[in-house]
Amino acid sequence: MADQTNPLLDDRDLDFLLYDVLHAERLVELPDFADHERETFDLLLKTTRRFAREVLYPAYKPMDESPPVLANGRVTVHPMMHAIYPKLAELGLINASRPASVGGMSLPLTISTAAMAYLMAANLSAAGYAFLTTGAAHLIEAFGDEDLKATYMRPMYDGTWTGTMALTEPQAGSSLTDVKTAATPTDRGHFLIRGSKTFISGGDHDLTENIVNLVLARIDGAPPGIKGVSLFVVPRRRPTREGLVDNDVSTAGVIHKIGWRGLPSVILSFGEASDCHGYLLGEPHKGIGYMFQMMNEARILVGVSAAATASAAYHESVAYARVRPQGRSMKQRDPAAPQIPIIEHADVRRMLLRQKAIVEGALCLSLATSRYADLAFHGATPAARSHAALLLDLLTPVAKSFPAEKGFEANALSVQIHGGYGYSSEYLPEAWMRDQKLNTIHEGTTGIQSMDLLGRKAVAGGGAAIRALLEEITEAATRARTADVPVSWIDAVTGAGAAVAAITAELGAFALGGDVEKMMLHSVDYLELFSVLVIGWQWLQQAAAAREGLARQDGLGDFYEGKLCAAQYWIFTEIPRIPALAELCRSGEDSYGRMKPAWF
Amino acid sequence: MADQTNPLLDDRDLDFLLYDVLHAERLVELPDFADHERETFDLLLKTTRRFAREVLYPAYKPMDESPPVLANGRVTVHPMMHAIYPKLAELGLINASRPASVGGMSLPLTISTAAMAYLMAANLSAAGYAFLTTGAAHLIEAFGDEDLKATYMRPMYDGTWTGTMALTEPQAGSSLTDVKTAATPTDRGHFLIRGSKTFISGGDHDLTENIVNLVLARIDGAPPGIKGVSLFVVPRRRPTREGLVDNDVSTAGVIHKIGWRGLPSVILSFGEASDCHGYLLGEPHKGIGYMFQMMNEARILVGVSAAATASAAYHESVAYARVRPQGRSMKQRDPAAPQIPIIEHADVRRMLLRQKAIVEGALCLSLATSRYADLAFHGATPAARSHAALLLDLLTPVAKSFPAEKGFEANALSVQIHGGYGYSSEYLPEAWMRDQKLNTIHEGTTGIQSMDLLGRKAVAGGGAAIRALLEEITEAATRARTADVPVSWIDAVTGAGAAVAAITAELGAFALGGDVEKMMLHSVDYLELFSVLVIGWQWLQQAAAAREGLARQDGLGDFYEGKLCAAQYWIFTEIPRIPALAELCRSGEDSYGRMKPAWF
Repeated sequence: MADQTNPLLDDRDLDFLLYDVLHAERLVELPDFADHERETFDLLLKTTRRFAREVLYPAYKPMDESPPVLANGRVTVHPMMHAIYPKLAELGLINASRPASVGGMSLPLTISTAAMAYLMAANLSAAGYAFLTTGAAHLIEAFGDEDLKATYMRPMYDGTWTGTMALTEPQAGSSLTDVKTAATPTDRGHFLIRGSKTFISGGDHDLTENIVNLVLARIDGAPPGIKGVSLFVVPRRRPTREGLVDNDVSTAGVIHKIGWRGLPSVILSFGEASDCHGYLLGEPHKGIGYMFQMMNEARILVGVSAAATASAAYHESVAYARVRPQGRSMKQRDPAAPQIPIIEHADVRRMLLRQKAIVEGALCLSLATSRYADLAFHGATPAARSHAALLLDLLTPVAKSFPAEKGFEANALSVQIHGGYGYSSEYLPEAWMRDQKLNTIHEGTTGIQSMDLLGRKAVAGGGAAIRALLEEITEAATRARTADVPVSWIDAVTGAGAAVAAITAELGAFALGGDVEKMMLHSVDYLELFSVLVIGWQWLQQAAAAREGLARQDGLGDFYEGKLCAAQYWIFTEIPRIPALAELCRSGEDSYGRMKPAWF
Repeated sequence: MADQTNPLLDDRDLDFLLYDVLHAERLVELPDFADHERETFDLLLKTTRRFAREVLYPAYKPMDESPPVLANGRVTVHPMMHAIYPKLAELGLINASRPASVGGMSLPLTISTAAMAYLMAANLSAAGYAFLTTGAAHLIEAFGDEDLKATYMRPMYDGTWTGTMALTEPQAGSSLTDVKTAATPTDRGHFLIRGSKTFISGGDHDLTENIVNLVLARIDGAPPGIKGVSLFVVPRRRPTREGLVDNDVSTAGVIHKIGWRGLPSVILSFGEASDCHGYLLGEPHKGIGYMFQMMNEARILVGVSAAATASAAYHESVAYARVRPQGRSMKQRDPAAPQIPIIEHADVRRMLLRQKAIVEGALCLSLATSRYADLAFHGATPAARSHAALLLDLLTPVAKSFPAEKGFEANALSVQIHGGYGYSSEYLPEAWMRDQKLNTIHEGTTGIQSMDLLGRKAVAGGGAAIRALLEEITEAATRARTADVPVSWIDAVTGAGAAVAAITAELGAFALGGDVEKMMLHSVDYLELFSVLVIGWQWLQQAAAAREGLARQDGLGDFYEGKLCAAQYWIFTEIPRIPALAELCRSGEDSYGRMKPAWF
């Protein structure tokens, strides 16, 4: 009952975002990307989108219906995944953005992110094996010695082995300060690891001969708290002269997730037989810092997965709304007249346009943030790099949480548009809605993102990042004016920018005055209003590019008109919400602040 | 992994809403309820809540996990349901609010609704068999002749048979105008029914010997459209002198719903062997009108089910947040200090308080609307009855859609509070979230409710219903002032009332000026702002009652303080959203209005 022609992501839209809006082709002017040209970008995208549609997507529903099974201590995954995995590894996306020195393609993250979005839209679980491995291997690349890189990073980057991030423990959840897994030094260089980790995605499977876990643990005698947590490479099987041998990592259970069901989430036990070897990555006690240096990338990818999941559902509902006849227009009073497709009803178009505004706004932000990551690491000058780094840090919590939170709403709208059929598992929208819910939870909940944004990024350096953001908005406004975007649209976005800068300064003043709790009380409302602005800025840029496209008369008029409607929708429906949200933050409205546990 | 002590609904809260807020005990002053006193109300509530907790709730997860199965042409339901059903029928809730003349208890709907809420919170599917039967039997009671009542209504009301509403057809969905099922008169009094219906809840099962379907069909030669649709009683088996014989109603399929999984949703075929007898209910061609006369009650019950589902999840998350340790307060910098329960984190309290505000606001509205139904039918004077009828009609679309839409958000927050565990099917929040999504779809989608509210109810009679609403709000404000509720709270709600009245008049003027489409373009935004006001009014009443309670010093201080926090939250977080929403309606912002299908 799925629409087999679902494009998952609209190719025109990706081209538009990458090239018309973000001018990603200009990245090849930077020395680190000089080996590339737009044609190599497009080739990768073409290969990936074809693989996503022809190989990954047909496996999505079967994998959702038959999740991995734990038996005799090991997890086996869906048979289709066995056929998929080697081809997925072959695509080269696992290390596409890494330099040639480690076997990669030196592709801008902007491009590899766009490519990854196709895989995620087609089959989140299948894509997960790849991007989890990227994250884990990248940590070894960044902080490991040559031995660790040769032994572990290389086979991970080439797809021979997969990787995991083993952070969460049952008693600690999001509180990494409370990690208890123990690492006891030995005189043979390795540590003996002992402890339990939970919710480890890809923590067990039968796709590859080995799985490499990046494990947060505490070296015996380490200081308490965050400053005593180290990072270890802990393979499922360890290489010896006799080949791979069991490393005392066992699978204690599988969690029955409600989505991402093709990717097992497992409980791992390390060292039950006191023979689990772990290899320290970098220096002792610096594990949390290392993790956080990789966090931007991981969080952007969660946002991309959220946008991609919402995109697949959006396209499904557009296709459904075009063919499903029901009812008549308000002006048509003849019941004998034929029914019209539901897309003709304004309220259905409202739901579709809201989905479009969320999906394409989120995708644009994902790519824009990836571009700042490229510029932060590869920019032409130190000033360009630090400007981009400020924006990367500032935008990451939004790029993570906005697609997750509003993507869930968009996914629910897709169910709604499908009516009773949307409420059945014969159709796909409900599955995407289940998939989406994880994104507000993993890699830092929305609450944690809001604290990261307001408590760290927005007020750091006297508001330097906000000033950098306002510069970008000013630039977008200039482009929009040149392109004849209506002045009222531009003013709405620049006005919102000023309002957000003002409330940020006011909240920062609470903290300077010693009342951090007052500043942080409405951090989620702040995240919300900040996100509305950031997405408004994405839509202003898209509106400018759409006007430029219309002026070119390049035959994509319908596409550009749709972009302008979505931009208008966001700017006039969402931006006006900012003042009331800012007032909430400013007033320190204290209902839940003063609510006592016993009062619930 | 479920909290076995989950109260599902808070008894104190139900008592508070029924008696402190709504003074339901005064209903016994009306002649039709004169046989009752508060004690009989409480006795029913006590029996029902015990049954809900001890019998229905333990069966919830098993029934969710093993949905009904179609085999050999018939549906069999979960074995636990077989044990439950006779006891459920015995409770007497199927016809509790009906008069003694038809075997009922003449209970106010306010009370039977409160009792039903317990069943729904415990096990929506199990409760469904009862309330679907009520709805179908009530139609026969209202419009059937004595023969139909004796033959069908009686065994339905006493629980011997169950009933369904068979409205939806595959090609028509929400558009009842397009019903195609045919009814051919015979010279023996009955009609021969032929057609197909889909999404029929309880349309097949093995709990009772018969199922009575209320079927919309078109008599041969009937006029096209809504004015040619009649209502028929079409039993699965028809009574003859030889007992029940097959009535040519067959089960063509079962829909795999994502929630309400204990209650089958089936596709029914009528008359495949040209031997399906249907009995006309009331007059020909008046079927739609009859249905709509029962619609208020059905829609209120959907709202109650939504509030109840959100309530169970709310209580589950409060209990979880109280015991789940994670992290430390912002002021605690010692990582060796013990972790605190997550309820100590302000952002978790925000999510809990939002759930509370939605759940208890929705429950209050459900009961208030039921009370208007009681007064509309049993009020002391014609003036009282017509005043209540205006409010009943006006509030029904809100009482249906608000709990459904915001209840889904509340259910998602419950998942969020449970973190990774909430994302697993070992815990219950995800199941309630799945259950909830149906409520925005069945018995009229949210879009349809918005058109009912703005297109019919709000502007009818020159805004008479809005004036009646403002009178009620004024009365609540007076009570609140007397109880020393802060003036700023009262002013916020009364101010919102005036703003809603004003925008309603402005929108009505568009229609009077001939532009109905402009009036209706933002009907969902109108429904949203209207709902915010209506729930604000519920919270103002609750705040007044809570202040009265505090003044009594009756030992429930914590409970009342919680009420005041939730009222404050709603009034200062939600009410300020109204101006921007009103501006959207007023401006006729036309992004999705002008969006063309080809532009998506």
